[in-house]
Amino acid sequence: MFERTDTLRGMTSPAPTRAYRRLSVEERQRQLKEAALSLFAVRAPDEVSLDDVAEAAGVSRPLVYRYFPGGKQQLYEAALRSAADELEQCFAEPPEGPLTQRLANALDRYLAFVDQHDAGFSALLQGGSVVETSRTTAIVDEVRRTAAEHILAHLEVVGATGPRLRMTVRMWITSVEAASLIWLDEEKQPPLDELRDWLVEQFMAVLVASAGRDPQTAEAVRGALAMETAEGPAGSLARRVLPVVSDAAHLL
Amino acid sequence: MFERTDTLRGMTSPAPTRAYRRLSVEERQRQLKEAALSLFAVRAPDEVSLDDVAEAAGVSRPLVYRYFPGGKQQLYEAALRSAADELEQCFAEPPEGPLTQRLANALDRYLAFVDQHDAGFSALLQGGSVVETSRTTAIVDEVRRTAAEHILAHLEVVGATGPRLRMTVRMWITSVEAASLIWLDEEKQPPLDELRDWLVEQFMAVLVASAGRDPQTAEAVRGALAMETAEGPAGSLARRVLPVVSDAAHLL
Repeated sequence: MFERTDTLRGMTSPAPTRAYRRLSVEERQRQLKEAALSLFAVRAPDEVSLDDVAEAAGVSRPLVYRYFPGGKQQLYEAALRSAADELEQCFAEPPEGPLTQRLANALDRYLAFVDQHDAGFSALLQGGSVVETSRTTAIVDEVRRTAAEHILAHLEVVGATGPRLRMTVRMWITSVEAASLIWLDEEKQPPLDELRDWLVEQFMAVLVASAGRDPQTAEAVRGALAMETAEGPAGSLARRVLPVVSDAAHLL
Repeated sequence: MFERTDTLRGMTSPAPTRAYRRLSVEERQRQLKEAALSLFAVRAPDEVSLDDVAEAAGVSRPLVYRYFPGGKQQLYEAALRSAADELEQCFAEPPEGPLTQRLANALDRYLAFVDQHDAGFSALLQGGSVVETSRTTAIVDEVRRTAAEHILAHLEVVGATGPRLRMTVRMWITSVEAASLIWLDEEKQPPLDELRDWLVEQFMAVLVASAGRDPQTAEAVRGALAMETAEGPAGSLARRVLPVVSDAAHLL
């Protein structure tokens, strides 16, 4: 994660001139995509010109066109594609330890991505951008689907995933996106680790509520809770929530 | 609600020719917007032409241009504006009875709107539409903000609403949108009343989880639970969830 951050940060300073001819096509394209992404992070894509990208990468505008003849739209889509690949790698987490810990690990990487891509992330998800097309929407949807598949794999569902559990997971993923946008909009408050823990708790909450209606989700919840500890997030949530609902014995 | 549905359905059959000259400017505009909305409900906005709208309204294409000189984009934005006004009216609910009942009433109206506008609703929220602009995005955001304000008003928060409670409500609203899109995509399963009850339960769940971290949310939850009954949704949820979490005593 830190390695990636440093790589991207490095792209905002012009590349040394001596490297101008030495990069391979692939390296040059990657350099330009990273320069574009670093600009989209601080300004909305609409406000970034190809000249800006050329300048950030320390190359000429014709050189940008040589590698991206389709201009800004092509560069934007290529940069988005590469950001989506990076984002999908955030979700990979070994199936070890309590579910809340795995989710926290993946969220740490996801939220670092949000933090780093900032304005570009907002612009993409909020829509209304002139560079948004059905292709960019499809890339975003693919990332969402990948995230859902990772989570469902960790829930170790036996057989096909039913619509209720799938819908619960997809709803939570959407609400994580919403939280990310609000977080960027509200000057990155609360701190990332607090936001992460809270999102993990929200996941547990919606999963438990769906378990009340769906045997498959109930099975997944039972399996997940069995691996949680009193010291971990699930125990902490249980102890903090109990006093709030303890006055509601009239509901039982 | 039924009245509204009937009005919109009526627009798909051509208006009688004798009415051609009698409508006022406002009536004519409303007729054209409703014809457009009824078409957007069955086809994506990209696939609806002004000729289609003229035909559905039983008028000529030049007449559509007379009332909407900006063409399809202007008609789309006007239709969206009128749909947004209608949607915002769905949220108004008197502050009486248990919170779950108020939420269920508002969701009934909201989901009927989703059911009725179908493809147009999906196209708008999924983005990537050629007719989507920063103005249409702003209208959608305004509807979300209005929904959040209604919910926060029902939670009867004393003083300014803190970021945690506000974020919880906005996240839930986004997940309701996600559920609506999935529901349209999955041939409107589960049945609307089941989806509605489940969304109410999801709201209770995320609110209770946030209450564990935020005193203001805890206060709102306590107030809300005090008005719930064992026979109502909160009691039913509590009884269904208890057996699922009862094996997790090791967390306390």
